[in-house]
Amino acid sequence: MSGEDAPAQQQNAEEQKQQETKTPAESPKTESKPDPPPTSASTEAAATAAAAADTPAPAAEKAPEEDTFTYRALVLTGYGGYDKVKLQVKKGKPALKSGEVMVRVKMCGLNFADLMARQGLYDRLPSPPVTPGMESSGVIEAVGEEVTDRKVGDKVLVLNRSGMWQEVVVVASTHTFLMPEGMSFEEAAALPVNYITAYMMLFDFGHLRPNQSVLVHMAAGGVGIAATQLCKTVNDVTVFGTASASKHEVISQGGVTHPIDYRTRDYVEEVRKISPKGLDIVLDPLGGSDTHKGYNLLKPMGKLISYGAANMLAGQKKNLFAVAKTWYQQFSVHTLSLIQGNRSVCGFHLGYLDSETELIDQAMTAVMDLYRQGKVKPRIDSTYHLEQVGDAMRRMQERNNIGKIILTTEPMKEEEKKEEAKKDEEKKDDKKKDDKKKDDKKKEDKKKDEAKKEEKKDEKKKEEAKKDDKKAEEKKEEVKKEEN
Amino acid sequence: MSGEDAPAQQQNAEEQKQQETKTPAESPKTESKPDPPPTSASTEAAATAAAAADTPAPAAEKAPEEDTFTYRALVLTGYGGYDKVKLQVKKGKPALKSGEVMVRVKMCGLNFADLMARQGLYDRLPSPPVTPGMESSGVIEAVGEEVTDRKVGDKVLVLNRSGMWQEVVVVASTHTFLMPEGMSFEEAAALPVNYITAYMMLFDFGHLRPNQSVLVHMAAGGVGIAATQLCKTVNDVTVFGTASASKHEVISQGGVTHPIDYRTRDYVEEVRKISPKGLDIVLDPLGGSDTHKGYNLLKPMGKLISYGAANMLAGQKKNLFAVAKTWYQQFSVHTLSLIQGNRSVCGFHLGYLDSETELIDQAMTAVMDLYRQGKVKPRIDSTYHLEQVGDAMRRMQERNNIGKIILTTEPMKEEEKKEEAKKDEEKKDDKKKDDKKKDDKKKEDKKKDEAKKEEKKDEKKKEEAKKDDKKAEEKKEEVKKEEN
Repeated sequence: MSGEDAPAQQQNAEEQKQQETKTPAESPKTESKPDPPPTSASTEAAATAAAAADTPAPAAEKAPEEDTFTYRALVLTGYGGYDKVKLQVKKGKPALKSGEVMVRVKMCGLNFADLMARQGLYDRLPSPPVTPGMESSGVIEAVGEEVTDRKVGDKVLVLNRSGMWQEVVVVASTHTFLMPEGMSFEEAAALPVNYITAYMMLFDFGHLRPNQSVLVHMAAGGVGIAATQLCKTVNDVTVFGTASASKHEVISQGGVTHPIDYRTRDYVEEVRKISPKGLDIVLDPLGGSDTHKGYNLLKPMGKLISYGAANMLAGQKKNLFAVAKTWYQQFSVHTLSLIQGNRSVCGFHLGYLDSETELIDQAMTAVMDLYRQGKVKPRIDSTYHLEQVGDAMRRMQERNNIGKIILTTEPMKEEEKKEEAKKDEEKKDDKKKDDKKKDDKKKEDKKKDEAKKEEKKDEKKKEEAKKDDKKAEEKKEEVKKEEN
Repeated sequence: MSGEDAPAQQQNAEEQKQQETKTPAESPKTESKPDPPPTSASTEAAATAAAAADTPAPAAEKAPEEDTFTYRALVLTGYGGYDKVKLQVKKGKPALKSGEVMVRVKMCGLNFADLMARQGLYDRLPSPPVTPGMESSGVIEAVGEEVTDRKVGDKVLVLNRSGMWQEVVVVASTHTFLMPEGMSFEEAAALPVNYITAYMMLFDFGHLRPNQSVLVHMAAGGVGIAATQLCKTVNDVTVFGTASASKHEVISQGGVTHPIDYRTRDYVEEVRKISPKGLDIVLDPLGGSDTHKGYNLLKPMGKLISYGAANMLAGQKKNLFAVAKTWYQQFSVHTLSLIQGNRSVCGFHLGYLDSETELIDQAMTAVMDLYRQGKVKPRIDSTYHLEQVGDAMRRMQERNNIGKIILTTEPMKEEEKKEEAKKDEEKKDDKKKDDKKKDDKKKEDKKKDEAKKEEKKDEKKKEEAKKDDKKAEEKKEEVKKEEN
C-alpha cells in the first residue's frame, strides 16, 4: 500500500513522459498509404478526458502526421483502486515493425486478470504506467512488412498480453484473428480470453467426454458462461454452476444443470447430494480453501483445473489479509496422494501462454468453428465507455454481471457526459455524507473505546492487586515451608 | 523389517489354515456340470512343491469333490525377499457367488506392484498370507448365477486387485475380458495392467495428440513398451525412452525415437539437446528426484503423470533408506506454480481403480481394438514356471527384462526340476561363499573402525585440551577486564 496512492496527478505527468519515450519512432512508417486523420471523436475526448489536463497542448505549427496522430488510451497509473485507471491521450503514430499490424479498436473485453493487475497482483502486466487489457476487436488500419494474411479493412479480434484498452493498438499479426461472418464487435471482444481459457481447460487438460460432470464456479461470469456453453457441445454433460440466486434463471437457460447459490448453501454438500461419487472436472478460479474442496470432490480419473485466485480480491485495493489468507490456504499436492486417488491437478492461465501461438491458434480455430455452428455465443452483460472504466471494473469485482463486460471506444455523447458528471457529483456528495457518518461513527467508537479502556484498566488494576495478594500469600507459604 | 523374516515354515502352516477358513463353502456349486478332476500335473506338483511339506496329507477316505479339488497357488507368506513367495497347494473347490466365474489359469503377468507388495510397500494387497498377482489369462471353468455374458470354455484375460498367481481363480465376471481371435495366453496375461495403464495415462490424463513428444522411463519394461506402441498409434509423436544401452536396439525397433542410456547420460540434458522447449508428456514410474526433473522438462500445457515409485525398490527386501529418500524427495506442487507454468500433474495407479468397471471397460475395449488392428502387441520377455517365481521377480527387479515377464501354470518337467534343484544348490554354495567373504570383510571393517575410533578419541582429547586452554585464557581476560 504505502506510497502507491500518493500524488497521482504529478506522477501521471511524469509517467506519461516516460511512456512516450518508451516507444521511439524507430521506423516512422511502413505504409505509404495516408492514414485517416484522427476522428473528431478522439480529439473531442482528448479535451475532456480527465487525465488530459496534464498533457502538453499540441504544437501550434504544422507538424508531421506522426505528431498530429493522437488516440485515447486507458492507462494504469499506479496500483490501487478503480481511479488508478485514467483516460489519457497518446500522441504520435506508433511505428509498425515487420510482422505487425495496427488495429483501430472498437471494443475491449474486461477480465479478472485486469482487476488483479490494478491491485498489483498480476505479474504479467508490465509496471505502471501501462495500458491494461488482454483482448479487443476492431479494424486493421495498417499492416507491416511481411504480413501476408491480413489487409487493411479486415475485421479482427485481438489477443495480447496487455495494452488492449486503447483506440489504436499495434500487435504481431499472429495475435489477430479474423472475425467470422455475422459476429459483432462486442462478441469479438468478449470471445478470446474466456473461450480459449474454457476450451483449453475442458478439452486439453480436462479431456471432457460424454456423461461426465463438471463444476463451474462463478457460472455467470465470462469464463463460466463460456465453459457452460462448451460443456453443452458434448453429449449428456452435467454442469454444476455456482452463482447467486438472482442469476440462476439465466444460467439455467444457458445450460447449467444444477445452479447452486454459494452464498446460502454449501456447494460441496449440494454436489454430493446429486452426484455422491463426485465430479469428473472442477474448474477453479477461486483458489485458497475452495481448491481443497474441489480436489476432494474429484472422482477417480478426475481433474481439478485451477485458473485463478479470485479469493485474493476483496475490496478495491489490495487487501493484504485476503491475499495472505488465499496464499496461505493455497493448495499443494503430493504425487503419492494423486496416485492413490488417480487424480490430476492442473494450472491454467492464458496470460502465461502468450508466446504459444500454435496452441492458441488451435483453440481459437476450434472455438470459431463452434461459433459458426451456432454452438457458442458470447453473452454481453453490459457495455461501458472508456470514461466509465471504473464503473465497469466495479461491476465485475462486485460480481453483478451476467456475462461479459465490454468497453467501447465510441466517445460518450455530450448529454451522457453531463449525466456522468452529475452522478460523480452525487457520488462525491454521498461520499462526503458517508465520510461524515464514518467520522461520527469513529468519534463515537473512540469514545466507546476509551470508556472500555478505562474499564479494562480498572479491571487490570484489580487483577494485579489480586495477583499481588496471591504472591504475598505464596511467599508466606514458602517461608512457612522453609521454616518447617 | 524385524520379525518379518522370522520362522516362515511354521508361520505358513498356520497362515494356510486361516486362508482356508477365509473362503467358506457358502454355496458349494452353482454348476451341475461335473468339474474336471484335478490334473495329474497339479497333484504331482503338490507332492514336490516346497511348501507342500506343511500341507496335511489328503484324507484317505472318499471325500466330496469340494475336498478332493486341489490347485497350486503362489502365496506371499510375509514381507521380505524373493523367497517369501511360496508355492502351496490349496484344497477345496472355491464357491461361486452370483455374478462370479471360475477360471482355470494358464498364464499370469508380473508387475512392479507385485515387487512392491512383497516388500510391504503396496497397500492394495491384503496382508499375508495372500496370493499376489493382478492379471492372468485362462479358460472359464464355471459360471455363477446371473452371469450371462460368459460361458464355460471362453478364453479370457482377467484383471483383479490380487490373487491371480494360482491355477484357479474366482472373480466377478466383470473382471474378465474375452480374448480376441489369435491372441496367445501369454499375450493375454501380458496385456491388461500394462496396456490399460499406458492407455489411460496417455489418452485420458495426457490427451496425446499428433506432433507431441513423450518421455517414457524404463522404456523396455512392460508399461514402457505398451506406452511406446500406443504413442505410435498417433501421427508424428516423438518418443524419448530411457533404458540401458544393451536394450536400445530392441526399443528403437519398437518405436522409441530417441533411446537414452540413463546409466551413462543425464536424460534431462539429452532431452533438452533434441527438444529445447521440453516435452508434452512425461510418464514417471520412478518417483523421488526424477519427478522433479520430469516436471521441469514440461512445456506449457505439458502433463506429468506419476504412476509409481520404483526408486523405492533397492534390493530384495525393503530398503528403508531408499524408501525414506524416495519419500523425502517425493514431489509436491503448489497450484500457483501449475498456473504460472500452465502445467498438469497427474497420479495414476490401476490398483486403486479396481472398482471403476466402466472406466476399465472403455480402456480395455479401445486396447483390444488396437490389438485386432495389429497396432499393439505385447512383447513377452520370458516365461517362468510358478516354481521359479523368485527368479522371475529377480529378473524384473534387476531390470534385465525387455518386455513382459510371464508365469505359466504349466507344471515343470522332471528334468527341469532337477536342474532347478542343482542351481539352487549352487546358489546356496555361492551364498555361503559370499557370506564368508562378507564375514571376513566385516571383521576387517571392524578392525579398521576400531583403529579409526582410537584415532578419533586421541584427536578429541587433543581438541578438548585445546578448548580447556582457551577457556582458561578467556577467564583470565575476564578477570583482567573486571580488574580494569
